[in-house]
Amino acid sequence: MKIEAVQLNPTIGDLEGNTKKILEALTQSQADVILFPELTITGYPPEDLLLDPSFIAEAEKKLQQIGPATKGRFVVVGLPRWNPHHKDKPLYNSAAVFIDGQLVGFKDKTLLPTYDVFDERRFFEPGGEQPVFEYLGQRIGVLICEDCWQHAGGVGYSDYARDPVLELADKKIDLLLNMSASPYSYKRSNARQAIFSACAMTLRCPVVVCNQVGANDQIVFDGHSLHINAKGELVQRAKGFEEDTLCIDLSKPLPPIDDHNGISHLYSALVLGVRDYFQKQRFSKAILGLSGGIDSALVACIAKDALGADNVLALRLPSRHSSPGSLSDAELLAKNLGIQIQTVSIDELFQEYLNRLEFEPNDLATQNLQARVRAMILMAYSNQYGSILLNTSNKSEMAMGYSTLYGDMAGGLGVLQDVTKRYVYELARYVNIPDSIIDKVPSAELKPNQTDFDSLPQFEILDPILESYLEEGLSPQEIAIAQNQPLEFVQELIRKIHANEYKRRQAPIGIRVTQKAFSKGRVIPIVQRFK
Amino acid sequence: MKIEAVQLNPTIGDLEGNTKKILEALTQSQADVILFPELTITGYPPEDLLLDPSFIAEAEKKLQQIGPATKGRFVVVGLPRWNPHHKDKPLYNSAAVFIDGQLVGFKDKTLLPTYDVFDERRFFEPGGEQPVFEYLGQRIGVLICEDCWQHAGGVGYSDYARDPVLELADKKIDLLLNMSASPYSYKRSNARQAIFSACAMTLRCPVVVCNQVGANDQIVFDGHSLHINAKGELVQRAKGFEEDTLCIDLSKPLPPIDDHNGISHLYSALVLGVRDYFQKQRFSKAILGLSGGIDSALVACIAKDALGADNVLALRLPSRHSSPGSLSDAELLAKNLGIQIQTVSIDELFQEYLNRLEFEPNDLATQNLQARVRAMILMAYSNQYGSILLNTSNKSEMAMGYSTLYGDMAGGLGVLQDVTKRYVYELARYVNIPDSIIDKVPSAELKPNQTDFDSLPQFEILDPILESYLEEGLSPQEIAIAQNQPLEFVQELIRKIHANEYKRRQAPIGIRVTQKAFSKGRVIPIVQRFK
Repeated sequence: MKIEAVQLNPTIGDLEGNTKKILEALTQSQADVILFPELTITGYPPEDLLLDPSFIAEAEKKLQQIGPATKGRFVVVGLPRWNPHHKDKPLYNSAAVFIDGQLVGFKDKTLLPTYDVFDERRFFEPGGEQPVFEYLGQRIGVLICEDCWQHAGGVGYSDYARDPVLELADKKIDLLLNMSASPYSYKRSNARQAIFSACAMTLRCPVVVCNQVGANDQIVFDGHSLHINAKGELVQRAKGFEEDTLCIDLSKPLPPIDDHNGISHLYSALVLGVRDYFQKQRFSKAILGLSGGIDSALVACIAKDALGADNVLALRLPSRHSSPGSLSDAELLAKNLGIQIQTVSIDELFQEYLNRLEFEPNDLATQNLQARVRAMILMAYSNQYGSILLNTSNKSEMAMGYSTLYGDMAGGLGVLQDVTKRYVYELARYVNIPDSIIDKVPSAELKPNQTDFDSLPQFEILDPILESYLEEGLSPQEIAIAQNQPLEFVQELIRKIHANEYKRRQAPIGIRVTQKAFSKGRVIPIVQRFK
Repeated sequence: MKIEAVQLNPTIGDLEGNTKKILEALTQSQADVILFPELTITGYPPEDLLLDPSFIAEAEKKLQQIGPATKGRFVVVGLPRWNPHHKDKPLYNSAAVFIDGQLVGFKDKTLLPTYDVFDERRFFEPGGEQPVFEYLGQRIGVLICEDCWQHAGGVGYSDYARDPVLELADKKIDLLLNMSASPYSYKRSNARQAIFSACAMTLRCPVVVCNQVGANDQIVFDGHSLHINAKGELVQRAKGFEEDTLCIDLSKPLPPIDDHNGISHLYSALVLGVRDYFQKQRFSKAILGLSGGIDSALVACIAKDALGADNVLALRLPSRHSSPGSLSDAELLAKNLGIQIQTVSIDELFQEYLNRLEFEPNDLATQNLQARVRAMILMAYSNQYGSILLNTSNKSEMAMGYSTLYGDMAGGLGVLQDVTKRYVYELARYVNIPDSIIDKVPSAELKPNQTDFDSLPQFEILDPILESYLEEGLSPQEIAIAQNQPLEFVQELIRKIHANEYKRRQAPIGIRVTQKAFSKGRVIPIVQRFK
């Protein structure tokens, strides 16, 4: 039996375009069994578009178009569909199964993630029994993403009462197909393989996983579709961060391969996050402020790799506090990357604000004014040339509120918003950013001799605390012990995280590369007094 | 039997302060039965604070403190608690029932709203059977908010399979207590009364509803706790938009009273939204730009009523395009309200931007630059004086993207973000804003002779279309027929709503006064191609 996992990059709500991709794949395929990612027709996650009945009706129409193209094959396509029982939530998150041109049934997702960035219980009702489909003498089970995760204890926030893998185990299947939209996460490198290996071992059959690729708002899906043999060994893996088709011949056993992850994947995730944000919105040009510091240097590299050097314009926006090194470093980097660079001084504008205000601004107002003059100039370029401003704030700054609302927090997309500073350094070394930039003491250059460490702890100390609290959900007590830091110090940092919630609520969406990013996946009230 | 519904205004996460309010109420009460609002101890909605185990532990501790104070009474207090079955979601949204100082049991919420701004399935598991408690010879049922709403078909987005009111009907109770956190909604005036009347008629017993009051982030809870007799007639109602205790003597029948709603409630909701945003964050001072137009005039009135005239500073920020009428109108209004007013011209700053930019800005860049100069000046004042900038954009502008990101979209709280322009006019007339402001043709005054209608349809045409689409979820076809407008025109407006999603994602939180506000309750992807 030949199987293909067609790892598509859909655009949310582009039912026409996504269906075209499905039909093209079916035309080209020579396989017996063809598997697509979760919610193939609509893209994942469609969010409140699901509440529009015409959206569901349109997806249903597309499914009918696909039917004839499945002649002679077993094809599994994902889409939302009406819950025919008309009780509780009105929709199912479904896999439509075609055999030889006929729609033979649906598998409805059983486990509906409702935590972090996922809100499937907002729309969907859990499916009932696990169907088994027969094709070419094989008994084939179909599960959808999360359905497999309870089995090996891979679900962080829920502990589902049901386990669809065990439900299928009783039915003795020969092959499990899983259609997924499983996000990339830097630190959860091998979790996905481990989960599906456990499923294969329980079911004693091969598992083929087709995972969506592409970025949608903040979430990056990495693809990396999997073929795991009945012993639970990974034997094939599709490409990451691009469309690919995993071609599997079950009659030919393969040796196990290694899964791998690392800094190159993190970089690819950020590049894909930028590229898809632009392409799927039909924008091509980016602008950013290039300060000579490491964050903007890294964003410039990512932007160039995502959009091409010709589409990236860097602006130097020096103040009286900018060092000559910063200016020359920015120029050097732009030259290395082959991107355009321009310079607009902010001093005269800042001075004019001082003239206009009838008070002498305090330290906070003074620093913010300069950061905001920069944003205004960048946004004027953005408006003039129809380019999107890339935001360069990193996760450590976002956590601490070490940033100016309507200043350096401006932009359409927060490229590094989920990357703590220590990983910014790793990425900068990975892409060979000049040492003079990497080694420079970080500074906002908003007052004389300022460095980040006037306001923040060293990143080697700060970042592990932030990551433990935000991403792993550890308590202050646990963090203080693990990081060997005074409890009061940890608590003060956590207090600061909470006090800056109001700023983050107005931040651009950011590319999510950890298991817990700011924004949708972390819903903390602004007005609250717990911490 | 004497009953009190103690309509508290809790602060989210202020477990200490909220518990103090509960204990004070218990000390003062002479009633036999005392009912508090949903999640009394934590405030509603605590959102992801619920994921912190120390938050649940702390709430549990507070419950233990409350126990002894319930001596001689029947007391119902709301809090989150661990789901003892350890399956699926780890928490219940519960009512703790004390009789005479003893915790006699819990009622766990059965119907968990997971739509619009509600995401209870993110945290909670539905409760099991409906318990009945006996006190002073009476059989008392306890339900929590949404539990009662399925019964009369009042749930818009879900159609629950269970109906806790029917489940209780079989158990023949003498009194139903409902603890609620039910938001205010301008257009759903009598829905709440109708729902609880239906419950009373089915159960053939009185219904007492204790509803939370106060604003938390974007949601305003109006209080208006209810006493409905066994015939389903409203006989008592607590005050709206402030703390109050509804004292009920079941032995004394009362005549039915009228429910009422209207523009005065809408105004009160906005005032409470501003007041609580400030007070609960321990801020006192507000600043706003006063253009002489109707939106900022209305926000100034609301701010004065919420915070006191001494705490409101208005800034006039004239450009070369500002009319003399605008300036004098702003001054007149400030004088009427007794608020401070200052003036900072934006012309010189705008000119300096033109000097600095190496291109002649196009129309878009030119208008945005001016709006952003205004925001920068306002934010400098905000930083200097520790005041919060009030945003004055209305819902019609927000829908159409007729607003400048980092310009007039700046601010800590969007006071009118859920009020379409036609209701801005109604409110302005209600608070006696001078006719010269109300009658003026709306204009951003960013270029010569500009009016809003250069870019937007008349509000009498626009607003009903926006409300039908956004709040009622009607299709373009339905709207075109109902509003007697060309379908293409309606579709173009809807396209514009979607195209501006990216701007709204960076808007301040706004006070929610309809059933569907922008922000949390409306999750539309930025990167999508459906509409």
